[in-house]
Amino acid sequence: MSRSHNFSAGPATLPLQVIEELQAALPEFKSCQAGIMEISHRSPDFDAVINSAKERFRRLINIPQDYEVLFLQGGASLQFYMLPLNILSPSEKGAYIMTGTWSTKALKEAKRCSESFALWEDSSHKNVPKTISKTNSTYIHYTSNNTIYGTQFLDTPQTDSHLVVDMSSDICSRPVDVSDFDIIYAGAQKNLGPSGVTTIILSPWAIEQSRKNDKERAGGIPSMLNYALMVSKNSMFNTPNTFGIFALERMLAWMEAEGGMESMEQKNKEKARLIYQELDSSEFWVPHASVDSRSLMNITWRIHDTQLESIFLERATKEGLLALKGHRSVGGIRASLYNSCSLESAQKLSEFMKEFRLQNQ
Amino acid sequence: MSRSHNFSAGPATLPLQVIEELQAALPEFKSCQAGIMEISHRSPDFDAVINSAKERFRRLINIPQDYEVLFLQGGASLQFYMLPLNILSPSEKGAYIMTGTWSTKALKEAKRCSESFALWEDSSHKNVPKTISKTNSTYIHYTSNNTIYGTQFLDTPQTDSHLVVDMSSDICSRPVDVSDFDIIYAGAQKNLGPSGVTTIILSPWAIEQSRKNDKERAGGIPSMLNYALMVSKNSMFNTPNTFGIFALERMLAWMEAEGGMESMEQKNKEKARLIYQELDSSEFWVPHASVDSRSLMNITWRIHDTQLESIFLERATKEGLLALKGHRSVGGIRASLYNSCSLESAQKLSEFMKEFRLQNQ
Repeated sequence: MSRSHNFSAGPATLPLQVIEELQAALPEFKSCQAGIMEISHRSPDFDAVINSAKERFRRLINIPQDYEVLFLQGGASLQFYMLPLNILSPSEKGAYIMTGTWSTKALKEAKRCSESFALWEDSSHKNVPKTISKTNSTYIHYTSNNTIYGTQFLDTPQTDSHLVVDMSSDICSRPVDVSDFDIIYAGAQKNLGPSGVTTIILSPWAIEQSRKNDKERAGGIPSMLNYALMVSKNSMFNTPNTFGIFALERMLAWMEAEGGMESMEQKNKEKARLIYQELDSSEFWVPHASVDSRSLMNITWRIHDTQLESIFLERATKEGLLALKGHRSVGGIRASLYNSCSLESAQKLSEFMKEFRLQNQ
Repeated sequence: MSRSHNFSAGPATLPLQVIEELQAALPEFKSCQAGIMEISHRSPDFDAVINSAKERFRRLINIPQDYEVLFLQGGASLQFYMLPLNILSPSEKGAYIMTGTWSTKALKEAKRCSESFALWEDSSHKNVPKTISKTNSTYIHYTSNNTIYGTQFLDTPQTDSHLVVDMSSDICSRPVDVSDFDIIYAGAQKNLGPSGVTTIILSPWAIEQSRKNDKERAGGIPSMLNYALMVSKNSMFNTPNTFGIFALERMLAWMEAEGGMESMEQKNKEKARLIYQELDSSEFWVPHASVDSRSLMNITWRIHDTQLESIFLERATKEGLLALKGHRSVGGIRASLYNSCSLESAQKLSEFMKEFRLQNQ
């Protein structure tokens, strides 16, 4: 077997231990006499899986008792529409902090069903705002980490508004106070497992808004897009992605065993430090994000002599350092250092970068 | 290993060969140096997977060249809303043939965004219609196989209308003429693989309707619900369920290797014959569906002495015949005989039924 150091931005690397647990469950799961993909989502065995995933998630990031947890399909992109549809009436407004591609997409979908608007913008995509101005909106929406540009909110924005967040690429990477938020949503394929599962955390207020708007919106909210309905069905109004939820459950178990959020944060800080230290050591490298907005999850940079970038990527691949190409919309180089990316992988990348710089500087 | 005979209605049994191919791809896929769940959906390796799935699907059921194929998330239940949203204007009508729970759910969602109506009803749920009356509607919708009640359309209804069909529980179980339909949609978790992937086949007319309604509906069609947009992005507007699509691809390859649709139909007919033959042999059994509406996929029945049902189910489980309990909404007994259910499993069940009858009659 030759698994390399995988810096994919998502779907991303997973711990080998989790991979092996998934392998084992495929032909036969527990005493089911059938594989994990072959049992009914209405069976006691699958109930135990989804409930364990919920309980582990609650424990791991300390979700308040009166909040609800959903595991749905469609990715964060479906939440871009589903969230405002449930939370806002057609004349209400969500204020969107515009820090990149994902917030632009989120606002576009929100405008289809509400009067939402952009609150803050920085066309360089190098920064995230340090303070939020007062605003007349039902909620403030932001993207906590920008996978494409490599910026991240280091702290939760302080606001009197209801706060909703797309945490797709940094959920479970560090401790957060969930009670600061009314909605947290995240695709699983970065820190939480494979693609095809979306986690959503809802406050009592969010669920009440969903009930209200289901009554007040023309036609009601479509069943598959209805937060309150999904809560009442424990995410199983219809057949969920059962294998994806099982994989999520195993990932959450792995994070618990690894020491939880404090441990994840410490490791993530150390991995990022190794790369930023090298990036800051010479003008050979051109890191993208402003220092005070730097992401611990996705580090993006160019090489001053941009012609060296393709050589860098080619040589990295040969050295077993995979998936370092920047997002197709910005180019350059990107290293994604999610929870499952090991310290060893970050060390190897940092060493390779130094060597490459010294050879080409 | 002790995999039993699994008659689950879905998520359903899968061929051991496919399970083993999935296992092998988890830690390392081809020359990726990473597992199938850990590579980017924008990588050439995953492109090859999704394109192979499309090509195999086209070949297997002979999809016309000018039709498009999508692999999305959300199950058939999301299609209940997505389909009328794309195809109908708010004042247009779909006519829904009401043969059970799923068509009821489909019509309910269609009514949220159109003037759709019920065309045919039979409250016993023992029959499907033999002819369709002329109707003033943009399309006629039906559910080709009713998982819960065990009824099935043996032939495609003849109509001048555009025909759209929920084929979730009998897609790829027999040859059909895809050009008879404008839309075929199906969750994968019965005949096509694990849950979490929905296949959708669209005629040029369907795609054109989607484009038109995106322009004409207030706010446009939300991106994640937009057929034409999904077609233009090869099902990858956002991150798809990559593992689910890989599993689907492997299932399609298995069906091709097994001889394709004619072979599937022949095997499915033989499996169903074994069970119906026993059901018809004595008044001990009370099969649910009318003889001319009987499903080859899901066979549902009661025992005349209903008190024997729980004993039957308990003993069956002990004999390694799993998941035979009827749907929670109807009770009784149900055997699902999808493609991956072996002839041997059907034989074992038929023998067990005979033995049980002789002991308890």
